[in-house]
Amino acid sequence: MKASAIAFSNIALVKYWGRSAEERSALNIPLNDTVSMTKYGLVDGICLQSHTTVEFSEQYDQDTAVLNSNPLRGSRIDRIRRVIDALRELAGIELKFMMQSRNDFPTMAGLASSASGFAALGLAAASALGLTMSREKLSSYVRLGSGSAARSVFGGFVYLYQGGSHETAYAEKICSCDEFDMSVAIAIIDENEKPVSSEEGHATAHSSPFNDIRIIKSQQQAEIVRKAILENDFTTVGRTAEENCKYMHAVMMTSDPPLFYWSPATLNVMKTIMKLRSAGMECYFTIDAGPNVHCLCHRSDLESVAREISGIDGVQRVVPAVAGKDAFVTDEHLF
Amino acid sequence: MKASAIAFSNIALVKYWGRSAEERSALNIPLNDTVSMTKYGLVDGICLQSHTTVEFSEQYDQDTAVLNSNPLRGSRIDRIRRVIDALRELAGIELKFMMQSRNDFPTMAGLASSASGFAALGLAAASALGLTMSREKLSSYVRLGSGSAARSVFGGFVYLYQGGSHETAYAEKICSCDEFDMSVAIAIIDENEKPVSSEEGHATAHSSPFNDIRIIKSQQQAEIVRKAILENDFTTVGRTAEENCKYMHAVMMTSDPPLFYWSPATLNVMKTIMKLRSAGMECYFTIDAGPNVHCLCHRSDLESVAREISGIDGVQRVVPAVAGKDAFVTDEHLF
Repeated sequence: MKASAIAFSNIALVKYWGRSAEERSALNIPLNDTVSMTKYGLVDGICLQSHTTVEFSEQYDQDTAVLNSNPLRGSRIDRIRRVIDALRELAGIELKFMMQSRNDFPTMAGLASSASGFAALGLAAASALGLTMSREKLSSYVRLGSGSAARSVFGGFVYLYQGGSHETAYAEKICSCDEFDMSVAIAIIDENEKPVSSEEGHATAHSSPFNDIRIIKSQQQAEIVRKAILENDFTTVGRTAEENCKYMHAVMMTSDPPLFYWSPATLNVMKTIMKLRSAGMECYFTIDAGPNVHCLCHRSDLESVAREISGIDGVQRVVPAVAGKDAFVTDEHLF
Repeated sequence: MKASAIAFSNIALVKYWGRSAEERSALNIPLNDTVSMTKYGLVDGICLQSHTTVEFSEQYDQDTAVLNSNPLRGSRIDRIRRVIDALRELAGIELKFMMQSRNDFPTMAGLASSASGFAALGLAAASALGLTMSREKLSSYVRLGSGSAARSVFGGFVYLYQGGSHETAYAEKICSCDEFDMSVAIAIIDENEKPVSSEEGHATAHSSPFNDIRIIKSQQQAEIVRKAILENDFTTVGRTAEENCKYMHAVMMTSDPPLFYWSPATLNVMKTIMKLRSAGMECYFTIDAGPNVHCLCHRSDLESVAREISGIDGVQRVVPAVAGKDAFVTDEHLF
């Protein structure tokens, strides 16, 4: 009863932010539909992936989770148990587990390591437990650990329904990685862990006067972006993603206490992207809960965009990435 | 028929942004009440003042306006004429005018040079025309040139009613400069003219999804700040001013086209102010339509705050200022 899986991180083109009412919150159900691109890094050693092995066995007398060689405790192992408990229940198995996971990119720095991590966890655990289910159904279980992880079960471009119940809040593929031409140059400005985690940040969203409007707008934007992806309308996808990101950061900065995830270099990258666009290169920015900037562009412009932003003061490195593939089971175990 | 006046710039603690319906717009009536502090710079040669001389005479065959030795044309002289035409009509005088004005600080760089400029213009012109009227009434005429200028007719802390008609959209003094202990250290980051003037910027506000809420919130904040000033509640004034500024910039950044007035140094000053506050120094930031940051603090902390922010990369200079006095007529003419 041991299995391993690899899943790739994703960048949300339409994001969620904030906590909903109590019962939804416990199930980690976002307040609006979201859309993402699963990422595959084009740099040696940085595929933007999580590789996770899970084993259920009588030899374990407690659940254990190790991430990048660090044992996880408290709320961090609790999140993992939320996913595995639900899968154990489904399988009717009560054995304790050992999990080991490794990210090939910075953890908790706004690069969505929890997305790839929980997707790999869910796939490996379901496989180890011998469960057979659709990817859509699996995505619901993965969501219990991390909302954005539901999307990393799939490759390419992915839609996550906010649904309203555990079963209806699931992800589905919009199109695969080679059906829509979008790449991303990731400007890494700070690789350290965020001073305020997304988990803590979500809890403050309701204090912004703009929060309710952001939710309504984001729901509309998710539908607009899905349609635009299917119609191969890069401009609408990019424009809407950039708008959606600004709406979220406007809510963050106007919350109490305020959250300023941007650093000076973040602002410089944003301005550079707007300048490049004025000069005729089609590119857009989006920023998660951290200082790093994802610069969306056509594959043919990826090297140019990466070059332009790598020279910016405060940008530590640029990771170019294309759309990634589905999470997959591998027989390469970590222990 | 020649008179001169000096007026001081002001910093809005509760700001207005955006254009209202056509008829209000032509009269320059803001969408919400605003509150400001009139400023008096403590640096040699920078009092943050405009000095203006106006003369009406048969010797002039056309209206002429000169600002800092540059003749004004097009929309810039039209704005001046909006104020003077109304005053000429009131006085029943049709003579052409010559105006010369000088600011002792950077013009159009987000330091509210139009506020002091139009206040000095209105006072000088009314005086040259021999008009006797209350300061409140004068402020309405000044508002025709620049909304924020209505407040610079007064010193100290000033309330501007959005009213709804020319007569009801006027300013009044909340308290004089020595009745509320608030100073400001102005971090000047860029002294050049703004790439997008406030005039152009206002026109885009309606395209932000957050604009309507900002207007409602700002009206509430204006009333909160007035009450807090009268109750000598520095904390509420500072907190509310900072919030109000963030609401405005959230609208600006989410407008179409977006307006990013912040530069990297702007963000650094904001973060420094938040850090100083966490460390126990009571200070708050506010930012107009430009990169410069006004850091609000008690008079006794002014030197400390100025010192802290003057070391920040990208801050060109810091101008400490206290609350200024009423605009006044002077017999020192510029020509």
